[in-house]
Amino acid sequence: MMRLPGCLAAAETMNVKPCVVLVRPQMGDNIGAAARAMMNCGLDDLRLVGPRDGWPNDRAYVLASGADRILDHAKIYDSVGAATADCVHVYATTARQREQVKPEVSAREFACEVSKHNDKVGILFGKESVGLSNDEIAEANTILHIPMNPEHFSLNLAQAVLLVAYEWRQASTSFEPSVGKPPQPLAPKREVDLLLDRLVADLDARGFFVVPEKRDRMIRNVKNIFTGRPLTSREVSTLHGIIAFLKGQDK
Amino acid sequence: MMRLPGCLAAAETMNVKPCVVLVRPQMGDNIGAAARAMMNCGLDDLRLVGPRDGWPNDRAYVLASGADRILDHAKIYDSVGAATADCVHVYATTARQREQVKPEVSAREFACEVSKHNDKVGILFGKESVGLSNDEIAEANTILHIPMNPEHFSLNLAQAVLLVAYEWRQASTSFEPSVGKPPQPLAPKREVDLLLDRLVADLDARGFFVVPEKRDRMIRNVKNIFTGRPLTSREVSTLHGIIAFLKGQDK
Repeated sequence: MMRLPGCLAAAETMNVKPCVVLVRPQMGDNIGAAARAMMNCGLDDLRLVGPRDGWPNDRAYVLASGADRILDHAKIYDSVGAATADCVHVYATTARQREQVKPEVSAREFACEVSKHNDKVGILFGKESVGLSNDEIAEANTILHIPMNPEHFSLNLAQAVLLVAYEWRQASTSFEPSVGKPPQPLAPKREVDLLLDRLVADLDARGFFVVPEKRDRMIRNVKNIFTGRPLTSREVSTLHGIIAFLKGQDK
Repeated sequence: MMRLPGCLAAAETMNVKPCVVLVRPQMGDNIGAAARAMMNCGLDDLRLVGPRDGWPNDRAYVLASGADRILDHAKIYDSVGAATADCVHVYATTARQREQVKPEVSAREFACEVSKHNDKVGILFGKESVGLSNDEIAEANTILHIPMNPEHFSLNLAQAVLLVAYEWRQASTSFEPSVGKPPQPLAPKREVDLLLDRLVADLDARGFFVVPEKRDRMIRNVKNIFTGRPLTSREVSTLHGIIAFLKGQDK
């Protein structure tokens, strides 16, 4: 399994999770979908600054798909300043380039930065229609840019939350055991070698390798077909069966 | 701006974009939202296998937020095989671990793999309620796993499309130049399907699948042996030759 250095300095685990701050969100649906995205990625600290339709909001619960606990514990604030008072670093999310003179990181760089520290970090997301205002961005230390198709950068609020939370999750969990073991035991090399030797002998007996000067390369090519990925012991037996049946031994 | 080796060998630009194959999608809303996510990430080849509510679908256009062009050009198919006939490599997306013996990559590993080559690749996404069936996964070469919170892995369809498309975009835009093409052209799926159909028919004629209740699973296992990694067109011919010689046709 290939190992990817998606974030070279990422911590193995994180103690302090970032909080997601939705600034003046308009639709309850999007708040609920954002909570679901947070739950998918293991985040749980949701803060709302002046939600347009008040709080709690029934539509949010409809869209949350089981992330009710996050909604139940969401905290409500009047201002970005109050919502991020306990954060040592605040990021302002945007999908388009902004003119403010402020450090800017990509979502992936954000995840790497955050996973190096153990401090409370806040991520601001602006309202659906126009994103964060310049004044709201001014409250942040750093702009967090989600790199998208520059011709169609407009992301749904919950999708923006998902991408940032996803990057956080990738950086904060180790990539190593992403797949787990295959459910079937893999065949030791000797089993595969036996199978291939048998196949080559069968083909040889039938005149498959007819041109002497190509013989070695052909055998290599045949073997490569079956050694391109690990075979399980059961697959090796299946291949023995296939060879036997094609030869007609068990007819 | 910090530079991240998210994918060390990824190509600077890609000529061939992956296609997104939604398999038996249930809600037009999700098809539209998936198209929007594709557009956000610069993908445009959308294929639908048996959409439940027919096609075209008004709700899809409502949710597409300007991705109408992708919906206008969406192609409709009866089966996964038909939808991916021109793909040299097919990935089956899942958010939970599967038991099938098949290579598995994370979304980020997928993006790195794909950006190294210049071949048509298909990404399967299952229906909203249950994801891909085992038979649908069997059509794929590789399982594409989106690593999520294991306690809450259930992603909305459009969000799954977004995460995979986002990883593709990150790998295909900002990183190092690639390592060059594989030496031999890879076989499109229809060539591999023809080979496997022939092998299954030959085995069937010889009584290989003798226990009726195990037949489907055995066929899937046989196919999985040969779809675990992409085969070149030359390897497919070699396998045709092997089958013919084992059967003794050319003795």
